[in-house]
Amino acid sequence: MSVSAAKKFENFSSWFDDLILKARIVDNRFPVKGFLVYMENGAYILDEIRRLLENELEKTGHKKMYFPLVTSEELFGKEAEHIKGFSKEVFVIDQGPGEQRLIIRPTSETIMYPMFKIWIRSHADLPLKVYQSVNVYRCETKATRALYRVREIPWNEAHTVHETPSDAERQVKEAMEIYQKVLKALGISYLILKRPDFDKFAGAVYSIAFDAWNPDGKVNQVATIHNLGRNFAKAYGLEFEKKDGSRGIPYQTCYGFGFSRVLAAIIAQHGDDHGLVLPPIIAPTQVVIIPIPFKGQEKQIYEYAAKVKEMLSQKWRTVLDDREDITPGEKFYHWELLGPPIRIEIGPREVAESSVTISRRDTLERTKVQLDKLTDKVAELMDAIASNLLERSRRMMMSLISDAKDIDEIKRILKDRRIARIEWCGKIECAEKLRDEVKGEIRGERYDIAEMPEGNCVICGEKAKYVVYVARAY
Amino acid sequence: MSVSAAKKFENFSSWFDDLILKARIVDNRFPVKGFLVYMENGAYILDEIRRLLENELEKTGHKKMYFPLVTSEELFGKEAEHIKGFSKEVFVIDQGPGEQRLIIRPTSETIMYPMFKIWIRSHADLPLKVYQSVNVYRCETKATRALYRVREIPWNEAHTVHETPSDAERQVKEAMEIYQKVLKALGISYLILKRPDFDKFAGAVYSIAFDAWNPDGKVNQVATIHNLGRNFAKAYGLEFEKKDGSRGIPYQTCYGFGFSRVLAAIIAQHGDDHGLVLPPIIAPTQVVIIPIPFKGQEKQIYEYAAKVKEMLSQKWRTVLDDREDITPGEKFYHWELLGPPIRIEIGPREVAESSVTISRRDTLERTKVQLDKLTDKVAELMDAIASNLLERSRRMMMSLISDAKDIDEIKRILKDRRIARIEWCGKIECAEKLRDEVKGEIRGERYDIAEMPEGNCVICGEKAKYVVYVARAY
Repeated sequence: MSVSAAKKFENFSSWFDDLILKARIVDNRFPVKGFLVYMENGAYILDEIRRLLENELEKTGHKKMYFPLVTSEELFGKEAEHIKGFSKEVFVIDQGPGEQRLIIRPTSETIMYPMFKIWIRSHADLPLKVYQSVNVYRCETKATRALYRVREIPWNEAHTVHETPSDAERQVKEAMEIYQKVLKALGISYLILKRPDFDKFAGAVYSIAFDAWNPDGKVNQVATIHNLGRNFAKAYGLEFEKKDGSRGIPYQTCYGFGFSRVLAAIIAQHGDDHGLVLPPIIAPTQVVIIPIPFKGQEKQIYEYAAKVKEMLSQKWRTVLDDREDITPGEKFYHWELLGPPIRIEIGPREVAESSVTISRRDTLERTKVQLDKLTDKVAELMDAIASNLLERSRRMMMSLISDAKDIDEIKRILKDRRIARIEWCGKIECAEKLRDEVKGEIRGERYDIAEMPEGNCVICGEKAKYVVYVARAY
Repeated sequence: MSVSAAKKFENFSSWFDDLILKARIVDNRFPVKGFLVYMENGAYILDEIRRLLENELEKTGHKKMYFPLVTSEELFGKEAEHIKGFSKEVFVIDQGPGEQRLIIRPTSETIMYPMFKIWIRSHADLPLKVYQSVNVYRCETKATRALYRVREIPWNEAHTVHETPSDAERQVKEAMEIYQKVLKALGISYLILKRPDFDKFAGAVYSIAFDAWNPDGKVNQVATIHNLGRNFAKAYGLEFEKKDGSRGIPYQTCYGFGFSRVLAAIIAQHGDDHGLVLPPIIAPTQVVIIPIPFKGQEKQIYEYAAKVKEMLSQKWRTVLDDREDITPGEKFYHWELLGPPIRIEIGPREVAESSVTISRRDTLERTKVQLDKLTDKVAELMDAIASNLLERSRRMMMSLISDAKDIDEIKRILKDRRIARIEWCGKIECAEKLRDEVKGEIRGERYDIAEMPEGNCVICGEKAKYVVYVARAY
C-alpha cells in the first residue's frame, strides 16, 4: 500500500475506536451496554448503504414492507431448532402479571411467516419476495464491540417463498449476486463461505456467509444467506394450491445484510493512519475545497473557490471549507480524518493559472488541473478511487490467506492475524479440537468457486473432504 | 365534493379498515395487539413522507442521527413531570434477576439528552439541532386503531438546544413552518392549536399540536411541537460556557411528526367511495395505463401503450397494466382502489387518432389529449390534482367547524361529527365538566392566528379568556 496504515494493523482496536468517535461515525458512550449512537456521518453512511442495497432488491422484484418489532412467545417457539438457536439471546418485554410476554425480534422469521400463511393461497402468489430494513436485537453474552458486535443491529432482511426447491436454489444465487454487487460498489472484499453444518443458521438447510477481512485478523461476517428448505414452512403451516389443484408445502430462503458491519468493513478495510478513506458512492462529502489565503488576495481566492464549488456541486456533494478561524493545515488534518475521496486546494497560484490542485484521499497523490478540465478530471478520479479501493482491498485479502498443513502452522497464521486455508475431513470432533487448540473457527468452504481437497485432514489425518478457511471471528 | 365519499362519512371505521387492507397499505391481522404490518403501498408512502420531511429538516440545518431504542430506568426517571406522564405506558425489558431493567423509548428525550450533556461545552456548540426517524412504543391502554392509535409508532422526532429563550421561540416557529410545508405538499388540512396547560407534553413549558380533521369528527393529532424551556436541561445537567465566560443552562425544544397518522390523514381526507385518492408526490404509482383491447387490433394497441409508458416513465412512476387474464373494467376498479392520480386509457380510437384518454382520480373527469401534448398535460394535471386535494380538504375542514354558545350546542356539533369553537375562561374545572358532559376535549386555541374572545365562558358564564376548539380525538 502506498499510504501507511501501520497503526491500524498494529493496534486495530485503539485505531478504530479513536477514529469512529473523532470522525463522528458513532459515539460509544451511551450508558446502556451494546447500544450505539450513530452521529451524523455514521447515520449518513448507513442510509446510503441501505439505499444501494434496497435499489438492487427493488430491481429484482423484492417488495419492501415493515413488520412489527415483537412477536409472542407462542409464535416465536414454533420452529424447534430456531428457538433453540436464539432463545438465550432474545430480549423479553414483561407486560406485568397476567399479560402476554413479548419477544423482541432477533430476526423476523417468526414474525413474517404467520403473515405469509395468511397471504399465500396458490402458486399465483409465488414467488413471494419481501424485505425490510430495520434494527434487530440480540442480547450478546460475548463482549460487545462498536459496530461489530452490538445489541442493536441495523440490517436488511429479505425473505422469500417458492414453489420448488430449484426455485429456492436460484434465489440463493440471486441473493449472492445482489450482495456481491453492493459490496463491490463499496470496495469491500470477503470470502463467500458455505458454513459447516454445525454452524448454520438455526432452522436452515444450509447457510452461506460473507466474511470480510479485518486488520486484526478476525473476520467480519457482513451478510448471510440461508436456504430454509421446508423447515419453517412446515412449522408455520405454509401451504399453496399447485397448478394441478393439489396442495403443496413451499420452499423458503432468507438473507440478511448487516449495515453496521458493512460500515465497520468500510472503515477497517480502507482507512489509514490519517483517518477514514471513503468510497465515493457513500461519502457524506465527496469533494472538499480548501482555500489557501494569501495576504491581499483573500477576496479573489474565496471568490474563485466559490465558483469551483458551484461548478462541482452540480454533480458531487461538495463542501467549501471557508472557516476563517483555523489554518489550511488544520483543515487538511480535519478532512483527512473525515475521508472525502477528493480534496481541492486553491491558492494565489491556482487563481492566477485558472487551475486547482487536486489531492486524492486513497493515495494522497496531488495533481494540478486546469479549470476547464476539472469536471472530467473529478469524474475520472472518482472512478479511479473506487477501483483502487477495491483492488487494494482484494490484494490485501489474498495476502492474508495462507495454506496450512498442520495445527502449528494454523496457530502461527492466526497469531499473525491472518486466515488459514486447510483440508478437513468434515467431522465435528476435528473442528472442536481445532477451535480449542488454535482459538479459531472453521468458517466453511468457498461457495462461489469449487476448491477440491487433495490430501488428508490436517487435524486427524484421515482423507479430507473439504477445503475450508480457519479464522478468528467477531 | 364532486366525487361521492358517502360511505366514509357514514361509516368511517368500516370504510377505512376495508380500504387499508384491500389497497395493501397495512394488514392489521398480526396477532399482537397494536402492532401493524405495513404492506408494500403503506411502506412506500411512509418512506416518501419521511423523505419529504427529512429534506426540509436538512435544509434548515438539522443533523440526522440514530439513537438507541432503550434507556435505563435511572436515565428515564430524571425529569419528574416527564416520567409521571409516560411511566404507565412504557414497555419494559426484563433482563432477568440482578440485571438492569430497560425502558423502550416512548419518545427520546431521556435517551438523547445524556448525550447532549457530553457534546455541549460552549456557545459554539449551539444551536444543536438533531433528528431521527424511528419507531417509538407506547403501551396504549385505550383501544387501538390501525394507523391512528397503535403501540408501534413510526415517526420523526427533532430535538434542539439553544442559548436563549428567544432562540428557542424562533425554533418553535421554524418547526411549525417545516410541518406546514410538508402537510401542504400532501394536501392535508388541520388546525394548529396551542394545547391547554393541563394537556401539554410532560415536561414542556407549552405544546402546540397539528389536529387534522377526520370524517368521523375525531381529530387526528399528526404532529406536535414543544417548548421545553430549561426543564429537561436542568434535570439532565446541560450547561454551556457563554461568550463572556460565564456558565449558562440552555433552552430546548422538541417536535414530533407521526408518519402513520399522516398516512391515515392522507387516506381519510382524500379517499372516496372508490378507494384511495393519493397526492401525486407520494403515490407509489403516479400514472397507470390501461389498454382497451379490440379484436384484431390487440398488437397495435399494446405497442402504442408501451410507447406511451416509455414516454411517461421518464418523469413519473408509470405502470402499464398489461395483464391479459382480467378485463379493463376489472382493472379500472382495481386501480381506483389504489388511488394513482392519473389513469390513461388506450383503445382502437386513441391509436387511430394518436391520442389518449386521461382520467383524473380526484374528480374522475376524463379528457382526450393528443400524444404530442401528453407530457405537458400530465404535468399540468398533477399540479391541478395536488391543488384540488388541498383546496377540497381545506373547504371540508372549514365546513366542519361551528361556533357554539352553550353545552347543548357543543353536544349537537360533536354528535354531528364536527368540531365546536367556543369561548372559555381557562379554568380546568370547566374543561373537565365539558369533557364529562359532551365526551369531547378542549384541544386548545389557534397558534398560527390570534382569535380574541368577546364574551363569556360557555361553561361557567365568567369572562372568557380564550377561543378554543372542542372535538373528540384519537
